[in-house]
Amino acid sequence: MIEPLLNHCSKFCAINQEKLNLLAPFFEYRIYKKKDILLREGQRCEEKFFIVKGCIHLYYLRQDGVEQTIDFAIENWWISDFMAFQHSSPAQFSIRAVETTEVLCITAERQQQLLTEVPELNAYFHLVFQKAYAAAQMRFRMLYELSKEELYLDFRRNFPAFLQRVPQYLLASFLGFTPEYLSEIRKRFIS
Amino acid sequence: MIEPLLNHCSKFCAINQEKLNLLAPFFEYRIYKKKDILLREGQRCEEKFFIVKGCIHLYYLRQDGVEQTIDFAIENWWISDFMAFQHSSPAQFSIRAVETTEVLCITAERQQQLLTEVPELNAYFHLVFQKAYAAAQMRFRMLYELSKEELYLDFRRNFPAFLQRVPQYLLASFLGFTPEYLSEIRKRFIS
Repeated sequence: MIEPLLNHCSKFCAINQEKLNLLAPFFEYRIYKKKDILLREGQRCEEKFFIVKGCIHLYYLRQDGVEQTIDFAIENWWISDFMAFQHSSPAQFSIRAVETTEVLCITAERQQQLLTEVPELNAYFHLVFQKAYAAAQMRFRMLYELSKEELYLDFRRNFPAFLQRVPQYLLASFLGFTPEYLSEIRKRFIS
Repeated sequence: MIEPLLNHCSKFCAINQEKLNLLAPFFEYRIYKKKDILLREGQRCEEKFFIVKGCIHLYYLRQDGVEQTIDFAIENWWISDFMAFQHSSPAQFSIRAVETTEVLCITAERQQQLLTEVPELNAYFHLVFQKAYAAAQMRFRMLYELSKEELYLDFRRNFPAFLQRVPQYLLASFLGFTPEYLSEIRKRFIS
C-alpha cells in the first residue's frame, strides 16, 4: 500500500531503495468511505494525508452554517490543515472523503522521527510544497483575474478529471457559485 | 550581508556553523531602489530572492493594462514566481521594489549545486514552503469568508507594519478595491 508514495518520492528526489524501505512503518494505511471525515474543524490537527486513491475536499463552516469548500485533492497529493499541523493546534478546516478514499497518514511526531532517519525526504517535501505554493500563487491570480464563468471554464479545461468525480454542489461551493448558477452555466456551455 | 539568511536558516533547521559558512558564495547580494523591477512578467524566471531588508510586491498586468498586486513580501520572506522558477519558464508575474530593498538572490542552477553541497537546507526549504502554503490556505479562506471591508480590517489587525510601508494604491489593489473605496473605508475606521 506504500508503493504509490514511494513512486512519488522517487519521482521528486534522489533516494535509494534501501532508504525507501524504511518508510512503511511510519505510515498508517486507512480507507475512508464516501463522506467520512478525516479531520474536523476545531480538533487538534496531528496528521497529514497522502492520497493513494480517491478524492477529498477541504472546507470550513461558514457563519450561516453552510460548508464552504476551498480545495480538493486527489491521488498523489498531500493534504492537511498545514497551519494547524505545523503548530499542532486546532484545525480551521475540515477534510472529508468525496468518494471512497485510501490514504497514507503520518502524524507530526512520526514525521519528525522519519525525517531524522531519512533526511533525504526533506528534498521531496521541499519540492512538494514549492509546487503546492506555486499552484496557490496561480490560483490567487485566477481569483483576481477571472469572472465566475471564466473560473468554471478554466477549471473545466485544466482539471477535466475532477468534473467527473466531484458532485456539482461541491464544485459550485469551490467556485463560489450557488448550485443553481453552476447548473445554468453548464447548460450554456453544453448546448 | 548573508547574516539574516543564516539566522533564518538556523531558526528553522538544525544546521551547523561549518555548513552555514558554505552558503555565501552561492548568493548574489543586490540593492534595488524603490520601483526597480526584480522580475518582469514574460521573462524567463531563473532566480528567487530572500529579502534582507525592504518590501516588494508581486503583480501581473491585467488585460485593461492595470497592475494587479497579488502579494507583498518583507524581511525574511522568499519570493519568486515559483511555478516559473521550478520550470525555468516565462514568468506570469512581475516583482518590484516598494521601497529600497536588499536581497540575496540565487539562481535555480546555483540552488541545485547548493543543495547537493548542503542537503540540510532542504529541511529549511521544506518548512519555509509549508509555512507559505499554510498561509495561502488561510488566505483562501479569508477571500471566501470576508467582505471587502472585513478584509481590510483583518489586514490592518494582522499586518500593521505593512500599513505603514505600503502605498495606499498598492494596498487597494491587493485588497481588490479601488483606491477611492479604500480611502472611504479608512476614513470610516479612523473617525
